[in-house]
This record gives sequence, C-alpha cells and structure tokens, in this order.
Amino acid sequence: MKRNFRDLIERKWSDRKFVCVGLDSELGKIPPHPLWDKLEGGDKMHTFNCEIVRLTGDIACAYKINSAFYEAEGAAGFAAMQKTIAQIRLLVPGVPVILDAKRADIGNTNEGYAKSAFELLGADAITVHPYLGAEAMVPFLRRGDKGIFVLCCTSNKGSAEFQGLESNGRRLYEIVADNVAHTWNVNKNCGLVAGATHPEELASIRRIVGDLPLLIPGIGAQGGEVEATVKAGKDSKGGGMIINSSRGIIFDADPRKKALELHEQIVSFL
Amino acid sequence: MKRNFRDLIERKWSDRKFVCVGLDSELGKIPPHPLWDKLEGGDKMHTFNCEIVRLTGDIACAYKINSAFYEAEGAAGFAAMQKTIAQIRLLVPGVPVILDAKRADIGNTNEGYAKSAFELLGADAITVHPYLGAEAMVPFLRRGDKGIFVLCCTSNKGSAEFQGLESNGRRLYEIVADNVAHTWNVNKNCGLVAGATHPEELASIRRIVGDLPLLIPGIGAQGGEVEATVKAGKDSKGGGMIINSSRGIIFDADPRKKALELHEQIVSFL
Repeated sequence: MKRNFRDLIERKWSDRKFVCVGLDSELGKIPPHPLWDKLEGGDKMHTFNCEIVRLTGDIACAYKINSAFYEAEGAAGFAAMQKTIAQIRLLVPGVPVILDAKRADIGNTNEGYAKSAFELLGADAITVHPYLGAEAMVPFLRRGDKGIFVLCCTSNKGSAEFQGLESNGRRLYEIVADNVAHTWNVNKNCGLVAGATHPEELASIRRIVGDLPLLIPGIGAQGGEVEATVKAGKDSKGGGMIINSSRGIIFDADPRKKALELHEQIVSFL
Repeated sequence: MKRNFRDLIERKWSDRKFVCVGLDSELGKIPPHPLWDKLEGGDKMHTFNCEIVRLTGDIACAYKINSAFYEAEGAAGFAAMQKTIAQIRLLVPGVPVILDAKRADIGNTNEGYAKSAFELLGADAITVHPYLGAEAMVPFLRRGDKGIFVLCCTSNKGSAEFQGLESNGRRLYEIVADNVAHTWNVNKNCGLVAGATHPEELASIRRIVGDLPLLIPGIGAQGGEVEATVKAGKDSKGGGMIINSSRGIIFDADPRKKALELHEQIVSFL
C-alpha cells in the first residue's frame, strides 16, 4: 500500500499521540555532546536529529522540519534534511514528517517546490501560504498521498495585521479556514496551521472546519498553553491535532522527558 | 561604498532600463546547445544562465532567479543559484539579482532564510509573502542594503480568492500595498510584486504607494501586455518598474533579440 500522510497521522491519533517534535536544529544552538562534538554543519545537524528521533520516536505523532534552519547552511543543510528524513523513515517508519517550508508560488512553478519536498526530501506533508489562492496551489493539492497544511492563524504576535482583517463579518483567517476546508480539500489532504498562542482563534477555526487536521505550533517557548490549546483545538473525536514543540523539547537536557511531559499534559486535557 | 539594491536599481532606471530577465531555467526546458549539451543538472543550469547573462547583461535592469526551479534539483540546484549569482556579480556587477523565493516565517526563523538568500547566495533582493505581517518580517526588513519585495497582487488567474476580499471598502491587496508602503518601509528597502496580468489593480497599487518600486511579472508567456503595464505601473518620474519576462526571453532562439524587443516596447510607452 502506498504511504499516505492522512493514514499515518490518523493511526497516531488513534494511539492518542499528538506531540509533534519540531527539529528546528539551528546549528549554533545544538548543545555539546560526544556524539556530534567533532562534526560540523549539516553532519552535526543530522546526527543531533537522529539522537532526538531515537529518544522520542515512540512518543511523537510526527516530526516537523523547519526548512529555514537548514537552508541557513546551504547545500549541506539540504543534505541534512534529506538524510534526517531518510533516517526517520528507517527508525520509525510509521511517524510522518512535515516539511515546514511555508512555500507558495504560482501554478507550475510550485512543481519545483513539490518535487523538492516530496521526491528529493521525501517529506509526507508540507506547510504552504494561502495568499495566492487554491488555483495556484494545484501542484500541492493534487497530491492525495501528502498532507498540505495551509497557514491560517499564525503564532506570532503581529499575526493579525492581515489575518485579523474583517470582510463581510468574518476575519481573513476564518475565510482561509472555510475555503481550505470546503473548497481546497477535494483530495482530503488539507490541514491548517493555527497557533497555540491564539486559543480563541483556534476555537473559531475548529468550529468552521469540522474534523480537518490542525497543525498547532507555539506551545512552550512561544507561550501557548496546553490546556487552552487542547480544549480549543480537538475535533469531534477528541483528536485531529498535531501539537508542535521545537526548542522546548530538542534543546532541553532531557528531550525524552520533555516530550513525555507534553504528551501527558495533552492526554490529561482530552 | 557598500553594495545597495536601491542604488543599483535606481541607476538602471536612470538609464531607462526596466527589463528584468527571469532565469527560470527549468532543467527539462533548456534548449540544446554545444556549450551545455554534455553537462547535467546544476552545471547545465549554471552554464545556460551564464550564456543568457552574456547575451542580455547590457539590456537588463535586474535578473530574477526563481528558487523553485533550482530547488527541484536539490543541493546541486542550490549550488547552481550560488554560482549563477557569483557569475552575474563578475560579468555585470551593476545589475542586481532578485531571489524570487517567496519566503516568510515567524520572527527569528526568517534569519535562516535571510542568511541563505543574502549571505550564502549573495542575492540583492528577495520576494516574500505578506500573510504573517510586518512584525514577523524584521529579519528581512531591517536589511537596508537589500530589496524586500512583498507579494501584493499576483499574476495568477485565481489571485483574487483572498487578495480581492474587501475590508472597509478596500481590497486586501490594496491594504497590503498601503501597509508595506507606509509602515513596513522604515528602511526604504521595500517594494511590491504586482502582476502585469491585472493592469487595473496595478494602477490602483501605484496610486496607493507613490514611487515605491514595483516588481511586475506576467508579461509575455502569462499574457500581460506591455502598454497597459507601463501606463499603469510607472511612477511619478516615469520609472519605478522592474518588468520581468522569463520563459519569453530565455527559452527563445534569440534571447538577446527578445530582451531588446521588450526594452524597446517599454521605452516606447513611457
């Protein structure tokens, strides 16, 4: 059977797993360790990632790789992403990988981004910007085997500048949520990105989109609270969430303990 | 004196140069030629680009590299972008390079993208998405030496899905134009992307933003017309435009002739 993001993530949810470990493995922030102290650049990032995966593979519902931290290392960073995803596929083949690349261009140009994310890197899902509209995003949307997470209400402080604009009684992020859930999602592969730092908006998004998968960053270092997030974000079956923590887990002295703590907190509020 | 995008492009405009040559050098579309027939992947793209630059370097006001076509070739594509920009710097140091990467993440994460675009690749300008708001974009906006082109009204058919939404009597793209021109542009390094395929919207944007630089894709293959574009897009000094053509120039049998034709057309309508 062909590997399918939605199947993989639903299996994790049915095991009550909702923690997404964000491999924001910024080179300068990787703590010292005999395993990678003698390595440099992309090799150091990759080896660090492998250790995080070893420590959290039975807890995570998904891994999220933010492309920016790797692109900062150029071609070596690209290779580190590639090798990390291949290693995750070997070590924990049931755990999907989301490439947090926030891409979006017009029409055929997106073919290049889709090829890079899905064929070269082997990601199971990607994050994209909504600004160009569904018509531009067909090269992503037609991939029924992959997850396409559209930015909706982002976790940053200044997210409301455009996302909070009101049009016909609805905020822009609510219109994005509605369109993605009800017109973009023809191949049942769409989800939305909604920050844990805005629980009211998260609740509003959940009301609009039914059981659409939500990728929820902003827990931990960014200040989002688990209880409010779970109450606002869970779907009708008590799942449907991919709750991401990056720095709060991977740069801690005990990443496994941090991931488990977040897992325990989430299930306690379900 | 430190290299500065705004200075470079203004010098080109004062020479009445407005043609931006888009190096959308998709590997499968590069025509046969003894110079690169025996090369593969990134090397082929780079060698093709060098020939285009040799043929158009005295006509172009800027080169635009769309990252998607290079990312489709992975690490070799990244190296091709790097080498192409280095070669442009050598051959025609006065012609700025715009990295059309359409990036945007939250806060510090953008540092990775900025480092990749400006330090590793050596681009003079970048395109970004507006959706996260100015607060998220500081790592780009604070670079007074670089050009930051924010997507405003894109050239694709379905651009109006969100960009055309009305809020308080103004369309979303008009609000983006207004905010970028009047609040994002503290370091005088901002511009907007406005498609030639929507001349009425282009005119409306020009009315809102005064003499802000506009990057205008969509001429040629996408159907935008030069006369309508120039009339709608020019600033109060009869300039301020970076009019991009990619496939229409680079994949033609005579790229120099095509670039010159576009140049002649543009200046005839000024």
